[in-house]
Amino acid sequence: MDSIDTIILPAARRTGGMPVMEALAARRSSRDFDTSRSLDLQTLGDLLWAAWGINRTKGRTAPSSHNRQEIELYIFLATGVYRYDATAHVLVRLFKDDMRAATGTQPFVGSAPVEIALISDTSKIIGKTPQGVTEATYADTGFICENIYLFCASENLATVARALVPKEELAARLRLRDSQIITLVQTVGYPAQNR
Amino acid sequence: MDSIDTIILPAARRTGGMPVMEALAARRSSRDFDTSRSLDLQTLGDLLWAAWGINRTKGRTAPSSHNRQEIELYIFLATGVYRYDATAHVLVRLFKDDMRAATGTQPFVGSAPVEIALISDTSKIIGKTPQGVTEATYADTGFICENIYLFCASENLATVARALVPKEELAARLRLRDSQIITLVQTVGYPAQNR
Repeated sequence: MDSIDTIILPAARRTGGMPVMEALAARRSSRDFDTSRSLDLQTLGDLLWAAWGINRTKGRTAPSSHNRQEIELYIFLATGVYRYDATAHVLVRLFKDDMRAATGTQPFVGSAPVEIALISDTSKIIGKTPQGVTEATYADTGFICENIYLFCASENLATVARALVPKEELAARLRLRDSQIITLVQTVGYPAQNR
Repeated sequence: MDSIDTIILPAARRTGGMPVMEALAARRSSRDFDTSRSLDLQTLGDLLWAAWGINRTKGRTAPSSHNRQEIELYIFLATGVYRYDATAHVLVRLFKDDMRAATGTQPFVGSAPVEIALISDTSKIIGKTPQGVTEATYADTGFICENIYLFCASENLATVARALVPKEELAARLRLRDSQIITLVQTVGYPAQNR
């Protein structure tokens, strides 16, 4: 760990946004990002709370297999790589480097403002779910990613969930434990203006 | 196939519902259903459109790996088992039997009004995704299930996604092809009144 820097996120808005049916109607994947514009802290914090925040005692905005809550969100910004601490609603910096480009090979990766890597600590679910670990943790990944999609639809942000991730190399750079696997990475930013 | 009966669903509402942030705040799993109350056709159709409906040309309310759209929804009601045809927004009856109880072992299964089985036609994605088939199709399952969760939060319906499903027996009763796998089953109904 390079730093103990912490970004305190503003309290998440628990009201507002587009009506659910309109957000569903607007849901889509987009790969065209305005690379000149980053997310302000309120929007970033609201995004992370929407994705996988704590919405009640022991409960979160997405379910997980037997409530094991094995997924962690790693946030890649120009200023470093952070872990989302949902309990404190803060970002804990793990690396000071801009490692966004290490999360994929598509042209927009590295210039889009936010990459969210979903990282499963499989030690929390092995032997504790009626499904296989892969089945359980990828379903749990999908729940969270769809929250990101609907938040982005609601906020007119562009997003795409990506499987094209150099997982081994990225895991090495993040110094993940063997029990931790990268499932998907989701890119978020403002939509390109000229489209 | 026992019947060619078709239930024409009312056009889905593409507006309304709870603001997205409120739906996320209200999202939870519930296993307490009012077994005396079924969903009216408008609500059932809106639920299925929210889950996995067509929201634009070639696009749906949830993403899928390389847009293969390999998931189908099988709907278990007291009146039979139906396949959701998203293009026509209709339910096509496959079996006239009430097979809800065959989808699980928990006490509420069989008496809750709606069971939605997510069934992946893996032949649509084998060799066509950078991920493994299991990874891709369980993530795709999660996307759809989270839409169901947020629709239910918005409409004050109770729901739980379940992995405790006798998959082999159910696949046999549904006469699935070898390429089709049952991923999760999600129960939906009105919440029990006495809680």
